[in-house]
Amino acid sequence: MRTVVWQSLSKEQRVSVLERPAITEGKSITSAVEQVISAVQADGDKALKELTLKFDGVAPGSIRVSGDEIQAAASRLSAEMIQALEQAYDNIAKFHRAQIPQPVKLETMPGVVCEQVTRPVNTVGLYIPGGSAPLPSTVLMLGVPAQIAGCQKVILCSPPPIADEILYVAQLCGIDEVYNIGGAQAVAAMAYGTETVAKADKIFGPGNAYVTEAKRQVSNDFRGAAIDMPAGPSEVMVIADEAADPEFIAADLLSQAEHGPDSQVVLVTPSPVIADQVSDAVKKQLQLLSRAEIAEKALASSLIVICESMTQAVSISNFYGPEHLIVQTRNPRELLPLLDNAGSIFLGAWSPESAGDYASGTNHVLPTYGYTRTYSSLGLADFSKRMTVQELTADGLAALAPTVVTMAEAEGLDAHKRAVTIRVEKLQEK
Amino acid sequence: MRTVVWQSLSKEQRVSVLERPAITEGKSITSAVEQVISAVQADGDKALKELTLKFDGVAPGSIRVSGDEIQAAASRLSAEMIQALEQAYDNIAKFHRAQIPQPVKLETMPGVVCEQVTRPVNTVGLYIPGGSAPLPSTVLMLGVPAQIAGCQKVILCSPPPIADEILYVAQLCGIDEVYNIGGAQAVAAMAYGTETVAKADKIFGPGNAYVTEAKRQVSNDFRGAAIDMPAGPSEVMVIADEAADPEFIAADLLSQAEHGPDSQVVLVTPSPVIADQVSDAVKKQLQLLSRAEIAEKALASSLIVICESMTQAVSISNFYGPEHLIVQTRNPRELLPLLDNAGSIFLGAWSPESAGDYASGTNHVLPTYGYTRTYSSLGLADFSKRMTVQELTADGLAALAPTVVTMAEAEGLDAHKRAVTIRVEKLQEK
Repeated sequence: MRTVVWQSLSKEQRVSVLERPAITEGKSITSAVEQVISAVQADGDKALKELTLKFDGVAPGSIRVSGDEIQAAASRLSAEMIQALEQAYDNIAKFHRAQIPQPVKLETMPGVVCEQVTRPVNTVGLYIPGGSAPLPSTVLMLGVPAQIAGCQKVILCSPPPIADEILYVAQLCGIDEVYNIGGAQAVAAMAYGTETVAKADKIFGPGNAYVTEAKRQVSNDFRGAAIDMPAGPSEVMVIADEAADPEFIAADLLSQAEHGPDSQVVLVTPSPVIADQVSDAVKKQLQLLSRAEIAEKALASSLIVICESMTQAVSISNFYGPEHLIVQTRNPRELLPLLDNAGSIFLGAWSPESAGDYASGTNHVLPTYGYTRTYSSLGLADFSKRMTVQELTADGLAALAPTVVTMAEAEGLDAHKRAVTIRVEKLQEK
Repeated sequence: MRTVVWQSLSKEQRVSVLERPAITEGKSITSAVEQVISAVQADGDKALKELTLKFDGVAPGSIRVSGDEIQAAASRLSAEMIQALEQAYDNIAKFHRAQIPQPVKLETMPGVVCEQVTRPVNTVGLYIPGGSAPLPSTVLMLGVPAQIAGCQKVILCSPPPIADEILYVAQLCGIDEVYNIGGAQAVAAMAYGTETVAKADKIFGPGNAYVTEAKRQVSNDFRGAAIDMPAGPSEVMVIADEAADPEFIAADLLSQAEHGPDSQVVLVTPSPVIADQVSDAVKKQLQLLSRAEIAEKALASSLIVICESMTQAVSISNFYGPEHLIVQTRNPRELLPLLDNAGSIFLGAWSPESAGDYASGTNHVLPTYGYTRTYSSLGLADFSKRMTVQELTADGLAALAPTVVTMAEAEGLDAHKRAVTIRVEKLQEK
């Protein structure tokens, strides 16, 4: 890990040192994904089967996973695994249920009632990556809020063979439409629908560069589907003072670094002692990891920033806008009101990122790549939409009429004005 | 207006009859906008001045409107106008203040505290179109929630000369950075910043095809800015039964039709009598409008649907997903729980769309073009973002540890597991 002293950097250096590596998705990915999407739009299920054979090397008997197969998954899991998944499910459900919004209803003037109501997104599509290890935690993070929001139809796509953990969590979340499809073809199937796969209104979930590009393309097409948020490599920033435990910090940095070679890992501390101790501890702990090679690559572009004060540490964090922010200081809660532009914040020595990644209750789908400035941690709100409602009485409209008439005149919109005056005239006739 | 009988249509005809006209934005717009964005990125203020001269035919003395000019606007407005704008401001502020969310904080397990907090988007850019008539109402709809959300910096761009009504509302909303810039160049300036214009995190507001395309382009660039929502032509659907007043309905349909030749206007009613009466009333009222020519073009592609029942009317509306939905029936509130996929709903005879367009309190920036399935009516939430926070006690972590360890093992993420076990071991040492 490279160490820099913040005070010694120029303004330009400060910007460049915290710059994320460019996402250089070649034009080859763009056009490959365009071709996959066109194929799925043209040939539906037939294209899905061909692409699954081509990309996943599997010819699934059927695109849809049967109810029996989903049911059978539980019998192949250990008791510990079932208990763990259910504990995580319970905590995530509690936290997301607490996000159910109060309806808003008020009279802005006598006789003018304005309301805000929410409705679930009808059909949502969840994408769960495959690969060397299954990701049941991601099924929980997407499936639980979809269930609590009350989405009518929840579809799950994942490349075959789908792990038992994933099927079991799907069942916990009440998802009965599970499909043996991965990659860009899964996104295309959910965005446009096929003979077998229902069209989704909105698509959620992480994936590789092809999945990300497919989500971008379908979200730019009004016939396609909305998506959860833009994607980038995962990242963590740790703010620590001299009260922090360097072993804990090293473990947290490594748990981010093992995600992938492009993971971003940054420690910000006013203590050069802590900086050195963490650096040493990272080297030691790295040896113990099965994914040491991946973590090592991520660490090569990672950073320790030595700052002057906690105030400066906070402003560095707010400027960088980390996906995960771990605060290991004497009084971490003191800093919370000052912290901005973070996906999820972990306060204190006993709150490692992996608690939130799996089971504390918060969502692990978070904005990355500086999108924390405008995007939110995934939550119940992303599975619903807000509509407004208004109901005026005759008197309410009469009282509001002069305002509407004056403004409609200023904007040159005659018919807008007439929609009010025609009613007020009718009232006066009575 | 064309009349169709829903029962007589095939499934395919039902889909096609409610299909919105394709938005055919030529490649010429895409590349013209690309050029404008590149010019602003390369030459900053200099490009803004050149483009303003080229497209707006104006050479503004300065790009920024001075505080004195903003202050002076009030003195040139009538007392009625000031009263109208302030009344609208008050109602909109009341409704948006009521949207301030309750923070979420709970223990999902003993010692595991999870929270959801919100922060304002720091810098927001508001685009207000120019043209024949000023749109102070749009300044209210964007400026009021930005003010209530507590955005640190609010920038407003509008093509010169900027109307006094707009400057006055900007002042009401506490906006002191107002710029004489319109079109794609305004979006580019706010997305990337120039010597004079600050970079915005998120850009809001309606505009022509060039503005819409510029918003799309900058929102696809991670160095650019987020945007409020995708844009399409404005639209209204009216659900009416035989209790409705055909004159009112006609006025409402026309107030949508006058927005532009591509406006969509649909009436759904089980009553052929109402259908005929509305059709006649539209023809009569059309003659009275200054924008009759525009409205006539919009009406040419508009529709009256004769359905069988209120239940069918509701499902037609939910399928179409109108931006504005006006319900003029005997018991409009009865239908509310069944209604979905609408931007804003107007209940009853005394709730014309123009009340909400200007002054009742609800926001008039709404999803169009079927985006109501996934996007929300603009509100306070769009000017803020949600972050999650967690704080575990040592005991809380110890209780959660087996779950995290089991799941991390299943996902093959060693370091995630170690971040927990290293802490639990330290606890056991004590």
